[in-house]
Amino acid sequence: MEKGQLLYEGKAKRLYTTNEAGVLLVSYKDSATAFNGEKKETITGKGELNNAITSTLFQELHRVGISTHFIRKISSTEQLVREVSIIPLEVVVRKTVAGSLAKRLGLEEGMILNEPIVEFYYKDDSLGDPLVTTEHIRLLQLATPEELDVLKTDALTIFQHMHDYFHSHHVRLVDFKLEFGRTSTGDILLADEISPDTCRLWDETTNEKLDKDVFRRGLGNLTDAYQTIADRIGGTIA
Amino acid sequence: MEKGQLLYEGKAKRLYTTNEAGVLLVSYKDSATAFNGEKKETITGKGELNNAITSTLFQELHRVGISTHFIRKISSTEQLVREVSIIPLEVVVRKTVAGSLAKRLGLEEGMILNEPIVEFYYKDDSLGDPLVTTEHIRLLQLATPEELDVLKTDALTIFQHMHDYFHSHHVRLVDFKLEFGRTSTGDILLADEISPDTCRLWDETTNEKLDKDVFRRGLGNLTDAYQTIADRIGGTIA
Repeated sequence: MEKGQLLYEGKAKRLYTTNEAGVLLVSYKDSATAFNGEKKETITGKGELNNAITSTLFQELHRVGISTHFIRKISSTEQLVREVSIIPLEVVVRKTVAGSLAKRLGLEEGMILNEPIVEFYYKDDSLGDPLVTTEHIRLLQLATPEELDVLKTDALTIFQHMHDYFHSHHVRLVDFKLEFGRTSTGDILLADEISPDTCRLWDETTNEKLDKDVFRRGLGNLTDAYQTIADRIGGTIA
Repeated sequence: MEKGQLLYEGKAKRLYTTNEAGVLLVSYKDSATAFNGEKKETITGKGELNNAITSTLFQELHRVGISTHFIRKISSTEQLVREVSIIPLEVVVRKTVAGSLAKRLGLEEGMILNEPIVEFYYKDDSLGDPLVTTEHIRLLQLATPEELDVLKTDALTIFQHMHDYFHSHHVRLVDFKLEFGRTSTGDILLADEISPDTCRLWDETTNEKLDKDVFRRGLGNLTDAYQTIADRIGGTIA
C-alpha cells in the first residue's frame, strides 16, 4: 500500500490517498488543540497512542457486528480506512453530565443521566461547531430525516457497546463525539476516531480524568492519561 | 378591579395580584433591555405602546378563535390576564433569517425560509436563555413530550395568523418569541405578550426595522418605530 497525496489536514490527523481506490490512509499527529484551536501544543507520543486506542476500539466494534470505516492499523501512527464522504455533524452521546452540557443547562458535572442523550453539532470551525436542532439540520440540508434517525440509533448502539467495554476495563465512558460518513453506495458508516480526544473517560473509582480534558483544563500530563487508557484496553498491542 | 401585591417584576412588565381569584394585572414599564440586561434604558411611552399593541394582537387572536391569557386592557399601560403557571421555555418561530439564527448557522439575515422553524430556549437569565433540544427539555422535565407537541403546533398556528395579519398592514413578521402557561385545569394557554419587544417586524417595502433591534443595534428612536407599528395596526385605540 503506497501513501499518496495529502487530502486533508485536521487538528489531530492527516488524511492521504493510497494506490487503492476507495482506501485512505490516516496518520495521527502529535498535536493537541482545544477551544476551537485557541490552545495548541505538540505532545510527543500522542499520535501513536490515539492510533493504537482507536484501532482497538474499532476492532472491538467489528467484533460485535458494528461496521466502521476502519480497515487495519499499518504502523504506529497510521491506519487504513474506507473512503467516505463525512456528514458535517458531530454526533454527541452523553450518559454523565460534563463539559458544555453542564454549562448550558446549569447541571452539576458528574450527574448520571437516566437515559443517554444525543446531541448534534454542526461541524463548522468558523461558527465554533454550534449545537443544532433537527429543524436546523433540515434547514441546512445536512442530513435527511431518515439519515438522522440512523445516526441517532447507531450512535446510541455504539455508545452502549463502548460504555460496557470501558466498564469492563474500570473506565467510565462519560460522553463521546462520533462522526459518520456516506459510502459511495449511500450507506452510513462510523468514521473519524474513538479515542481520549473524542471521549470523556474517567477512572471508575477515583473519577480521575483520562481524556483530553487533562489538556483543556491543564490537569497534568496528557500522554500519561492516554497511556493509562491504552494499557487498560491493551491498545498498545492492537 | 383592585390592584394587589406585586408578584413579579420582569425587564419590561410588572405583574400584580387583583381582588379576583385567577386574574392578574400586568403593568407595562417604560424600560428597554437587551443582551440579557447588559444594555438598559428608560424609554418614555414604550409601556403604553406595548400595552396597546399586545392588547390589539391578543384580541385579533381571540377573533380567529385562538385562546390567550389576555382578558382586557384597563388603562394606557395596564391589562388584566388569566393567571397561569409559565412554562420556562421561550418558543421562537422564524420565517426569515435574523439575529441568533443568522449567527449560529452562518446564514444571511433576510433569507426567507421555505417553512417556518420552531426553536426552544430555556428561560433562565443566569444561563443566558440557552437554545435547548427536545432531549434537553425532556432531561430537565420542562415540558412533557405531549406539551411540546402542543407548544410547537400552537406556536406555528399563531405565527401564521400573526404573519398574515401584519402582512395586511404592510409589515413583515420575521420571527417572534412566545411564552405559554398552564392553567389550573392543565390547559396550555398563550401568555406573556406579542409586541415589538418580542417580534422582529420589518417594513415590507423598505425592510426598515420596527422592533427592539432598533434599540439593540442603536438604529434610531425606539418609540418612533413602535408608534409606526401601533399606527399601522390601529393599536393606539385598542
